[in-house]
Order: sequence, then structure tokens, then C-alpha cells
Amino acid sequence: MSGDGPKWTAVVLTLFPNMFPGPLAFSLAGKALEKRIWSLETLDIRDFAGDKHRSVDDAPFGGGAGMVMRPDVLDAALCRAKSADIGDAGPVRAIYLSPRGRPLTQARVLDLAHERRLVLLCGRYEGIDERVIEAHGLEELSLGDFILSGGEPAALALIDACVRLLPGVMGNAAGVGEESFEDGLLEYPHYTRPAEWMDRQGVRRAVPAVLISGNHARVAAWRRERAVALTRERRPDLWRRRVALPATDCD
Amino acid sequence: MSGDGPKWTAVVLTLFPNMFPGPLAFSLAGKALEKRIWSLETLDIRDFAGDKHRSVDDAPFGGGAGMVMRPDVLDAALCRAKSADIGDAGPVRAIYLSPRGRPLTQARVLDLAHERRLVLLCGRYEGIDERVIEAHGLEELSLGDFILSGGEPAALALIDACVRLLPGVMGNAAGVGEESFEDGLLEYPHYTRPAEWMDRQGVRRAVPAVLISGNHARVAAWRRERAVALTRERRPDLWRRRVALPATDCD
Repeated sequence: MSGDGPKWTAVVLTLFPNMFPGPLAFSLAGKALEKRIWSLETLDIRDFAGDKHRSVDDAPFGGGAGMVMRPDVLDAALCRAKSADIGDAGPVRAIYLSPRGRPLTQARVLDLAHERRLVLLCGRYEGIDERVIEAHGLEELSLGDFILSGGEPAALALIDACVRLLPGVMGNAAGVGEESFEDGLLEYPHYTRPAEWMDRQGVRRAVPAVLISGNHARVAAWRRERAVALTRERRPDLWRRRVALPATDCD
Repeated sequence: MSGDGPKWTAVVLTLFPNMFPGPLAFSLAGKALEKRIWSLETLDIRDFAGDKHRSVDDAPFGGGAGMVMRPDVLDAALCRAKSADIGDAGPVRAIYLSPRGRPLTQARVLDLAHERRLVLLCGRYEGIDERVIEAHGLEELSLGDFILSGGEPAALALIDACVRLLPGVMGNAAGVGEESFEDGLLEYPHYTRPAEWMDRQGVRRAVPAVLISGNHARVAAWRRERAVALTRERRPDLWRRRVALPATDCD
């Protein structure tokens, strides 16, 4: 690597810095972290608490269950995460991971992989004070329509999705383009050796004959037909979005 | 805890067992793991390879980039994961985490939290041989419309979402019911102390007056109005699904 350091940095604000790098220390992301293709900084939100009890949360105004993370504490942590003390100067994109956010999609991942520095704020408890979202213009992103114990598992998944797109991370660059979502379809079924396989229940299962025909056009047509059928069956929402778009030569 | 052990077990099949428990060793999930409210088993898929090179993948039939995980290796690993050697006898639900799957939702998380044993197969490379999905009736679930380096970050998020719903995990049981998605709306904004707060740019930001009015009916109406506005703006898909349902007394 050249001496000018990683081109992509994730700064994670969390109450559980020990959760990081976690799974990102291994495999693709881990090797890329070692090679300094990307870097990871974690800031413990508790270090930005103003009182001696290191309180980060308080009861919600208006009542209700659970606690809310304080705006003053998060403001201090966010200012530090955006500062030139961490990584180089330059634009910073600050994200709050929350089920209220816009859903993460592969298009958004591609966009985030082109940033220099992402700040990822992981909430806990009922959520964070709305005013800190306004003050920092935080972009709210959601992993999906389910509830996690906090933003940390979402941050790990988001970073993993971005890192694999960074130049030099995937061994086989051709693999990146041929995946799910790139053409608005779910992926066709995959088969590998053995061509005929008997499972442990004693059922003989052969690879579809077309895949060993050597006829590339037929293979491509079969795969497309399977991808279309799968998308229509499992994801009518994706299919509707796709047919609403102008047709291309490949269709 | 009683002597009859955890009521919920996740068996993870992975090429990277060191990624687990990862973030699940901390906070809510970590404390519940220590208290044996749930248990975690990881099986290294490579241990089920048949040859001395411990190969788990091979080239795809029909050509194309990337490698596919072999059906015979995965079959052996799945049979072991479902066996009585791991956890107690009883029904097992086997899931393959894949962007081709049906999207994970809070309703599906609730359903999975009621199982006794979940087997979570984490794919790597281009995917897994389709025949093993058929042979084991694997249920395909997706975290969202984006691509991860493998199923592991998705498994971590899925387990985290399930574990927080297990009896005895959340300190405040009331918090579980009042969250996003339970009523088909995104969550309203939260506020906590200080009631008036000056951010680091010098902007004074006050809590909405209604929240400190002490008028519970007005607070509830304001929160509902904000939740509806946020859902319509950010998630027209959720909003459309909601208005298609019969109206309730609360509307």
C-alpha cells in the first residue's frame, strides 16, 4: 500500500466499542483491514457524558417506556467523529442506524462505498433525541423492518457490504457485477460438483441437463428464466418495480 | 435458571466460526447467553469436507464467475446441525441466509423467537448448490436488498433480533410492545433532557411544548400524527399496506 493510508474510514459511535471489529476482523473485510484498504475507529459514547456518573440517557419527555439518548452527549461525540483528529480532513457523511430510516439497498451501499469517511451512530434503548438528528443533519438508514437490540449489528452489516466493494478487496472483480439486484432480479440457482449427487435420505439429485450442455445461449436463457420466475414468486415488489422501467435489449 | 437448559438455540453453519458470538457476547444478548436463556453452537463447514484438502466449493456448472458451495459438504453439515447431538430432540427450523430469500420482518422475527432450535446456514462465494436447499427444505431469508460478503453478518443480526424477544431478556417488558412496526407505523420522535439545549453551532433547540404540557391525550395525538407523517414521507410502501387494512378504533 502507498503511504497515504486507507481510502475509506468508518467511525462508529457506540456504547459497546468491544463489539467492533467483531466479524469484520475475519475473511474479506479482515484482510482488507490488515492491508489498510479501509480503517475502523470506534468512539465510546460514554466518554462524552458530562457528569461523573457518565449518564448517556434519560427518561422521555411526554412519558412512555424506555430511555432516550441525550442530545448534548451525542452532539459532543458526533463533533469528535467529524473532526480532523480522526482521519484526514474532507467531507464526512453521518448516518444514524434506525428502523425509522430509509431502507438500505445495494444502490445506497454503492453510494456509501464512494465516501471517504462514514460516521455511524448506533442507538440503544428507545432511540436518540430528535434534536441531534436535526442539528447534525443525520441521514437515517434502516437495515430492514425488524428491531435490533441496538444499531451495532446494523453497522457491522453496512460496513461489510461497503468494504467488499472497495477497490482491491474482492479477488475476482468479475464476480461483483453479476450479482443479485444489479439487474433488478433475484439470482438464478447455482450448481456445482458432483453432477449427480445422492443426498443422505437416498434421493438422487442431478444438475439440470442444460447446464452441462455446453450451449452458452441456452444456459443464459435458462438462468434468466429461472431468475424471473423466482423474482415474480418471492418478490412481487421487485418485479413490479422492474417492469415499470423501460425494457432493455437484454429482455 | 432451572436445570433444563436454554429454551432457544441457534446453530450456525459457517466457514468463519470465529465471527461468533462476536457482538452477541455483549450487552443484552451477551448477558442472556451467560444466563443460559439461549445458547449458541457453531459448526465449521470445513469440518464436513470429504477430501484431504478440505474443499467446500467448486466451479459452477454452466460457467460464470465465482465458486459454489458443494451440496455433499453442506448436506453433512446440516444433518449434524439437526441431529440430537446438538441440543435436545425436537423440531428444528433450517434457514439459509441469502439475498434471494424472503425479507426478514418483525413478524418473522417473532415467529423465529418461538422456535426451539434454529439452524442458520451462512453462505459464502456465489452461493450454495440449489439441490441442498431442496433436500433440506431450507427456508431462504434475506436481511435486505444488498449484498454482504457472506451470511454471517445477517445471522448475527437475525439472532440479535430474536434474542431480545425471549422471555427474561429485556429488563422492561413494556418497551417491547411499543416499538416500530407493531402498529404498522414508524416510530415518533423522542426527546429527553435538557428541555432546552444549545447545540455546538450555538442553535437553541427546545423540546416541543406539547410534550411538557402534562396532557396525556394531546401527547398521544401528537405522537400519532408525527408517526403517520414520517411513515407517509419515508415509507409509502408501509403506509399503503397499512391503509389497505381495516381501520381500528385507534385510527
